[in-house]
Amino acid sequence: MLKELLLPEIHELIEQREWSLLRDVLSTWSPAEIADLMLSVPKAERVLLYRALPQDLAHEVFAYLEPDQQINLLHELTDSESRELLAALSPDDRTALLSELPGDVTSRLLALLEPDDLREARWLLGYPEESVGRLMTPDFLALEPGWTVATALEYIRQHGQDRETLNRLYVCDKRQRLLGVVRLRALILADPTTTIAELMEETPRLSAFDDQETAVRVMEKFDLSVLPVVDSNGVLVGIVTFDDVLDVAEKEATEDIQKLGGMEALDISYRATPVSVLIRKRAGWLTALMLSEMLTTTALSVFEKQIEKAVVLVLFLPLVISSGGNSGSQAATLITRALALQEISFRDWWLVLRRELVSGLTLGSILGSLGFLRIELWTLLFGPVYGDHHLLIALTVGVGLIGIVLWGTTIGAMLPLLLYRLGFDPATSSAPFIATLVDVSGIIIYFVTAMLILGGRLL
Amino acid sequence: MLKELLLPEIHELIEQREWSLLRDVLSTWSPAEIADLMLSVPKAERVLLYRALPQDLAHEVFAYLEPDQQINLLHELTDSESRELLAALSPDDRTALLSELPGDVTSRLLALLEPDDLREARWLLGYPEESVGRLMTPDFLALEPGWTVATALEYIRQHGQDRETLNRLYVCDKRQRLLGVVRLRALILADPTTTIAELMEETPRLSAFDDQETAVRVMEKFDLSVLPVVDSNGVLVGIVTFDDVLDVAEKEATEDIQKLGGMEALDISYRATPVSVLIRKRAGWLTALMLSEMLTTTALSVFEKQIEKAVVLVLFLPLVISSGGNSGSQAATLITRALALQEISFRDWWLVLRRELVSGLTLGSILGSLGFLRIELWTLLFGPVYGDHHLLIALTVGVGLIGIVLWGTTIGAMLPLLLYRLGFDPATSSAPFIATLVDVSGIIIYFVTAMLILGGRLL
Repeated sequence: MLKELLLPEIHELIEQREWSLLRDVLSTWSPAEIADLMLSVPKAERVLLYRALPQDLAHEVFAYLEPDQQINLLHELTDSESRELLAALSPDDRTALLSELPGDVTSRLLALLEPDDLREARWLLGYPEESVGRLMTPDFLALEPGWTVATALEYIRQHGQDRETLNRLYVCDKRQRLLGVVRLRALILADPTTTIAELMEETPRLSAFDDQETAVRVMEKFDLSVLPVVDSNGVLVGIVTFDDVLDVAEKEATEDIQKLGGMEALDISYRATPVSVLIRKRAGWLTALMLSEMLTTTALSVFEKQIEKAVVLVLFLPLVISSGGNSGSQAATLITRALALQEISFRDWWLVLRRELVSGLTLGSILGSLGFLRIELWTLLFGPVYGDHHLLIALTVGVGLIGIVLWGTTIGAMLPLLLYRLGFDPATSSAPFIATLVDVSGIIIYFVTAMLILGGRLL
Repeated sequence: MLKELLLPEIHELIEQREWSLLRDVLSTWSPAEIADLMLSVPKAERVLLYRALPQDLAHEVFAYLEPDQQINLLHELTDSESRELLAALSPDDRTALLSELPGDVTSRLLALLEPDDLREARWLLGYPEESVGRLMTPDFLALEPGWTVATALEYIRQHGQDRETLNRLYVCDKRQRLLGVVRLRALILADPTTTIAELMEETPRLSAFDDQETAVRVMEKFDLSVLPVVDSNGVLVGIVTFDDVLDVAEKEATEDIQKLGGMEALDISYRATPVSVLIRKRAGWLTALMLSEMLTTTALSVFEKQIEKAVVLVLFLPLVISSGGNSGSQAATLITRALALQEISFRDWWLVLRRELVSGLTLGSILGSLGFLRIELWTLLFGPVYGDHHLLIALTVGVGLIGIVLWGTTIGAMLPLLLYRLGFDPATSSAPFIATLVDVSGIIIYFVTAMLILGGRLL
């Protein structure tokens, strides 16, 4: 963007403490652009830059910062600056901020809020984490069914100035129970004497206790940019807007990807995560995986005699067990994502099992043939590098691969479904986790196959 | 939902061919709900159900079906039914449908379109795949800066009936170049004699040739539910709405997850993908990975003598190399996702490298200590199960683990950055791919460590 060319000049203005000149330049920038700028100045200058901004703009910029940057900035602000800032944030932005803070900082900040805002913040915070209640804003306009279009438009003119969205206006009865929705465009296009009841349409709705993932699915299904949220009595308590939902969708995908990579999900961006946290989030799973992988040592000890007799079997061990891990990781990834997108659920286990058995058998046969051919081809080209029993060894590798790939695929597909059924996150069945599981069982499958085929000859 | 209770009755109505009764019942359902219903009836009945719906509703329902279901249904429709359907679809839905079809079916369908629609469809199809041009709809209203609010509202009343969104109205000069945006709510709240130029705000914009991923980032950054699309001359050519962008965001995440799982991305849902395609999308990568993994056999052959002398080293081989694969898979996943979310770019390689070297060394030391302790603990508990040189073997495993985890982490972090720099998809550096790479090099690191430590004694 053109504005990036201005960065050196901006930095100079900050260094020379030219606050009023800076304010003039920045007043034409959008809040998102200024938030980007704040990230590129040294930490110590951020609060100076923040204070140089016109107050309204400063508050908007704050809403665009990442949670950890918001917290850093908050530490630098005085109590009265914090109070003004908190009062100016929209309710859902305020909730997002407060729920990220350590408990004691939260209470210090809550103490700064005006009674009305305080009630709102406390109330929004009362819903479970990851629930729609945490995402919603109570910042909506409700119309009455008996009003005419003229009355409604007048009401909107008087009360609509600061609302987050006016594209869809909700209609409630006297007890605030949600009846339906009227689109702003319908109001504009209608005759002024029409009643709201005539223009009203049915609307999908969310419960405040629904999982945020539900908001993504419903919004996607009905192509709506805003959804109403009701409590257990059907009373309209808030709205959820598409921008929050888009954030949720991306965040859930990131969490799933990180878990599938075999680690705990980071809560914030890679760049903003300190190295110590990066290590902590990875060490837990790595250690657990290694402890399980120690079973491979136990399994191999069982077959130590066979290994001594036929060291040649060891040459193909990584090849054979990693193929099982790879096919298992494919299956686990497919099923985990399909579950997350609600394309399948637990009751589809039989369908999944049948499909994955067919896939596993086919893929196993392909890889098994490749393994067989590799050994025979090498023997043909380089002589008896794998000994006199090369044909039987090729057979062992081929048959072992079929068994291990079939087994890896089945485990990889069934484990996410099982975790899901038991109420755990299916993304826990990560590629490394499946690979570890299959390594242990793969060793057993491989050596048992070897003993069946080579028993009496090589073993 | 309550409506699921009605399913058996609906099925009975279909079986008894009670079309008019069915039409009455379904006329109160939303298109999305009817689309769900269509999936639950046998294929042969879908076209009957489609024909039973009032025509407008039928067209809306069609837009809610998945691409492959749309194609199946299209095959069953007559030419005149297809023509009516295509004309009724919104331009972006029509483009999505046409670009999914095999070429010959596309031309048959294009031939059915009216000249005006045809021009629109052809024009939308001219943009590269995955570009914003394929996502946009030319279905917007443009205002002129000199108009008053009253004129603008009258214009909207006359022309706004069928537009996809009216929340943000774009302002263009005489040559259709985009000047800015006016929000519908601002029009409602303003005095009727105000001019559009006074209410106009700046707006972020997309180029029709931008990647669709850009639309996700811009929409996320500015919290907008609709964005204008301009050509190289700044002429407004279309708009992109949040529902299409949400689909793109989810689709990109799914593709990345599937690639990270070590397979080609599916284009449609797991459930809708035939088993033959499932196998094909997996077999390619599995085969490639196995062919690379064959290098482990070559590497092990080099060390065959050492293995014969010290079979005990083999017992820890899967443990050691899998730990390298696991730590590499964590790093690759982290960096790939951070690249996709544009949290980092290639020029951050030095930052990433420093952080991952620290992480790799720390994680390697943790796992190395665990490996060392495992061997000494077993020796303490069960006697000299790993021979007289158990301390040196424990040292080999410990030091080998540090080296291999450090190496895995570094490769896992750098490879996605390199792929990204070279213009490939970083998600190609999947967990299985990294594991395979690290397996081969891990064997070399492990045995070289063993020769250095055990040389002269056991080896």
